[in-house]
Amino acid sequence: MYKAPVADIAFTLNHVAGLSDALQTGKLGDLGSDLVDAILEEAGRFASNEMAPLGVTGDRQGARVSDGVVTTPDGWADLYRSWREGGWNGLTGPEEFGGQSLPNMLNVAALEMWNSASMAFALAPTLTMGAIESLHKHGSDELKATYLEKLVSGEWTGTMNLTEPHAGSDLGVLKTRAERRDDGSYRIFGQKIYITWGEHDAADNIIHLVLARLPNAPAGTRGISLFLVPKFLVKEDGSLGARNDVFCHSIEHKLGIHGSPTCTMIYGDGKFGDEKGAIGWLIGEENKGLACMFTMMNNARLAVGIQGVAIAEAATQKAIDYARERTQGKAPGWSGSGMSPIIEHPDVARMLLTMKALTQGSRAICYACAHALDMARHGEGEEARVWAERAALLTPIAKSYSTDVGVDVASLGVQVHGGMGFIEETGAARYLRDARIAPIYEGTNGIQAIDLVTRKLPLSAGAQVEGFISELKEVVRRVEAANDTQFGLTADRLHAAIDDLEAATGWLLKAQSEGRHSEALAGATPYQRLFGLVLTGVYLAKGALAASDDSKSDQRIVLCRFAAENLLPETSALKRQVVEGAASLEAARAVLA
Amino acid sequence: MYKAPVADIAFTLNHVAGLSDALQTGKLGDLGSDLVDAILEEAGRFASNEMAPLGVTGDRQGARVSDGVVTTPDGWADLYRSWREGGWNGLTGPEEFGGQSLPNMLNVAALEMWNSASMAFALAPTLTMGAIESLHKHGSDELKATYLEKLVSGEWTGTMNLTEPHAGSDLGVLKTRAERRDDGSYRIFGQKIYITWGEHDAADNIIHLVLARLPNAPAGTRGISLFLVPKFLVKEDGSLGARNDVFCHSIEHKLGIHGSPTCTMIYGDGKFGDEKGAIGWLIGEENKGLACMFTMMNNARLAVGIQGVAIAEAATQKAIDYARERTQGKAPGWSGSGMSPIIEHPDVARMLLTMKALTQGSRAICYACAHALDMARHGEGEEARVWAERAALLTPIAKSYSTDVGVDVASLGVQVHGGMGFIEETGAARYLRDARIAPIYEGTNGIQAIDLVTRKLPLSAGAQVEGFISELKEVVRRVEAANDTQFGLTADRLHAAIDDLEAATGWLLKAQSEGRHSEALAGATPYQRLFGLVLTGVYLAKGALAASDDSKSDQRIVLCRFAAENLLPETSALKRQVVEGAASLEAARAVLA
Repeated sequence: MYKAPVADIAFTLNHVAGLSDALQTGKLGDLGSDLVDAILEEAGRFASNEMAPLGVTGDRQGARVSDGVVTTPDGWADLYRSWREGGWNGLTGPEEFGGQSLPNMLNVAALEMWNSASMAFALAPTLTMGAIESLHKHGSDELKATYLEKLVSGEWTGTMNLTEPHAGSDLGVLKTRAERRDDGSYRIFGQKIYITWGEHDAADNIIHLVLARLPNAPAGTRGISLFLVPKFLVKEDGSLGARNDVFCHSIEHKLGIHGSPTCTMIYGDGKFGDEKGAIGWLIGEENKGLACMFTMMNNARLAVGIQGVAIAEAATQKAIDYARERTQGKAPGWSGSGMSPIIEHPDVARMLLTMKALTQGSRAICYACAHALDMARHGEGEEARVWAERAALLTPIAKSYSTDVGVDVASLGVQVHGGMGFIEETGAARYLRDARIAPIYEGTNGIQAIDLVTRKLPLSAGAQVEGFISELKEVVRRVEAANDTQFGLTADRLHAAIDDLEAATGWLLKAQSEGRHSEALAGATPYQRLFGLVLTGVYLAKGALAASDDSKSDQRIVLCRFAAENLLPETSALKRQVVEGAASLEAARAVLA
Repeated sequence: MYKAPVADIAFTLNHVAGLSDALQTGKLGDLGSDLVDAILEEAGRFASNEMAPLGVTGDRQGARVSDGVVTTPDGWADLYRSWREGGWNGLTGPEEFGGQSLPNMLNVAALEMWNSASMAFALAPTLTMGAIESLHKHGSDELKATYLEKLVSGEWTGTMNLTEPHAGSDLGVLKTRAERRDDGSYRIFGQKIYITWGEHDAADNIIHLVLARLPNAPAGTRGISLFLVPKFLVKEDGSLGARNDVFCHSIEHKLGIHGSPTCTMIYGDGKFGDEKGAIGWLIGEENKGLACMFTMMNNARLAVGIQGVAIAEAATQKAIDYARERTQGKAPGWSGSGMSPIIEHPDVARMLLTMKALTQGSRAICYACAHALDMARHGEGEEARVWAERAALLTPIAKSYSTDVGVDVASLGVQVHGGMGFIEETGAARYLRDARIAPIYEGTNGIQAIDLVTRKLPLSAGAQVEGFISELKEVVRRVEAANDTQFGLTADRLHAAIDDLEAATGWLLKAQSEGRHSEALAGATPYQRLFGLVLTGVYLAKGALAASDDSKSDQRIVLCRFAAENLLPETSALKRQVVEGAASLEAARAVLA
């Protein structure tokens, strides 16, 4: 069973992602390391002891629907209540509405633990947190006064309604429509699919954030507005009133995250209320809904990235436990009696070390992204602007690389278990099933790659990414200066990998400046992975350097070396795909015609 | 829905794997290309039209067990009857027992189609064919006379009983025991797990091949014997007699291949018969059972490899179909009205071309392995010996590389489908679920890698692998000589990849000759993938060169170029893992302690 790696998480937050420095320089207000430690410890306890067991049973039972009523797995409604009463939903929520206004870093670390315990369960608060952020930033004072406190406490949950059957990633073509009413409200009509926790029995009310189109709105994404549509209307005194005209038509039969109800929601079908149309209120301005939703989506992208980390961590723990106990054959050099534990076989050790290195690397990337968000929020002027750019640059990498890692590591976890891995009761397969959605939702990883290459690399005319690469090189110089033979060829390998990143970055910027967009896009996905691998190596090195007074110091150094010498050589192939792969890809399109 | 790619299959058989030459030189007897074409055409029709639809419904329904009675999905028993009445079970079976004694190549091609249509269904005959081979080679005349004809016709099916709860890949520790009886029979007692199609309702009798240990047998793998244990005893006249003392205790709840009952079988529990003990007959000699079983396993390894190819083909077809129809956004250069089909986006095209190249490469590897088996069977003396070595060398690569390809391609297929890919009804997720067992069973891919490095590379003191590499180089020289600009950098990339293979091969042979076994094993898995990638590139080139008078010639050349320029650069990283990765892996074991 999953046991939250609180010490690893705290170490990565403090010594790799920058929390320790930020606390010492007072950049995060009066937050102290004692409180940080206490929060992580308690989150770890809750995730390991309360949530993880119900994650297992919830996967088997799944969410069910009957006549529009969705029932979550046994025990989940109570679990949710006990979780939100612990104050976990409001960690980063605004203080004026009952939240704790803590740094994103802490919430992302906690989210990792919730997702390791049960990704399907953790999706509920993940969506609520996005709704809070969007509403807090763009909502009217009246909407905030009515909804925010109960969303921050978690008494009500939130959802995000984007997708329609014909409109996945391309929101410009959505058809859900909204009509103005004289009282300032709107009526919403349409169908939304893939609505995570769109209907359930764990909270008293559900607040839907819905993208829809007003009559005569401009075509495409410039004609989309965002509306707040509650499941139950809220009376003046804050109590719940009539049921709104929205209901869950069905839930999906999915590969994974079985405990999370993925709903088809129907708005304005006349099932509830006197007049057809779900009653909603505008968030932000008319036709500016996409910007409001993007607030929610950026938040959600990092939150999905951390799902990848979380699954990778849980799958790695499970595989190591199994490999220590399961015996088969005799590994070379095995001197014990009988068969050796399979962890002794070099091939199994390779799988487990790869899993560990990828997990720790993707964790550091997500935490570093959260740190940049915190620095941008708490900083001012130019410094805040540069941190905001850093967060923008890291977000697609955190989302895509980490979720790819989640799938790869979960698949390796199945492999380590051998035949047992294919049997559902073992639990290794569940991680692979759950992990597989993360590279898809919140913008497929291909879309993240397009975002990275076309919008993030050009930030400050390339100065943001170049500055970042300079920082990475500085870490390598520190590895060289450490002059510790345990690092092996780490410095050389990191240098080579950063050179690959630099060359690929320069090529992509040049290709775009010359209008060769198709060529740049052809290399976007390999580039994204290249960036993630380099960061994995550098962040592991940063941790290894920081750990010199830590009892785990030697372990961090040798794992860093393993990653540098065994995983980073892939960057040269990825660079080639970026700078040389487009022509053959273009030529080979004939095969698909 | 899957449509058997008969033309591609025939092309690969004839012009890449060597069937055409073998037919022309008469090395396969009087088999002619007309018959080959007719068989492939008819197999394709059956797989596409009869089997594929039931593959879909069978996955949803799954196999069920109640009180030892296993029911296969609706329609499967009839499907099996109609399939075996078509003569498909006996394609390669011995003529004296009603088989057609056709080359392995044809059967492997047909198996690909059955597995693309339904891997769960195709497992039944796959196991039967293994049992036929083992019984034909090692069984007594009496056993053959009693059982072979009905196994060859498929009227009865066969199984393979190796695994026990504590003994997966390591058969030396199995506990199932056999007792001699005076009449020449044996009584078998024990429990076997993961028995594919161990019990079902699609055939009148089931012939279990069971590994067990005699009293006072030597310890380890030298004390294992192989027994034939029928579900129903067979009377003198060939009709079915009493039920034997073997039954299905339960079936597994698995990630995939839901239609295939994976049984726990209990032998000798006293549930049937007057006296406790399942009645069995020895195959081969006492304590020589492992050799007999290996006959079955080698056959099965290639058959599992082809499962990877089959899933990859089906997943690729599905993804391409979807990507042509689904529209989202506007790809660069898209001049059509509205959104472009997603196949126009460079990132999607990259995924689809990768899927195509890996599928075709792994297909060629499996067919080449089957060809080597055929040449060994039909050849004589030194020539046959060399071909047998070639088959031995290719078998672990065919098994492992192709099954890894199956998982990777199925996962890409899910990704191409976006959110739809995660919904079970779409069918893309089923391929990923089914594919995931293939790298595990019949010896995990890690065990294949150990076999490749420790037993296959040293064949003829390294001369076999060196000779093979020389043949690969010859193909590259022909690419250079073709002097066709459409090949782009293909020749350069192939040269570099083969150089990597040669360097890694030399290093592994040297490491072993110097007794550095742990170092050699540490690089075994990357080496296996390196070998598979090189063969993918070379075989695609061989097909591209052969196709010069074919209307698809240009397509084969540009796909080959895509693979060479986009996929083969990975070999340099893999080579580094082999020749430089062991030290850091060894050092990093401290992390797992």
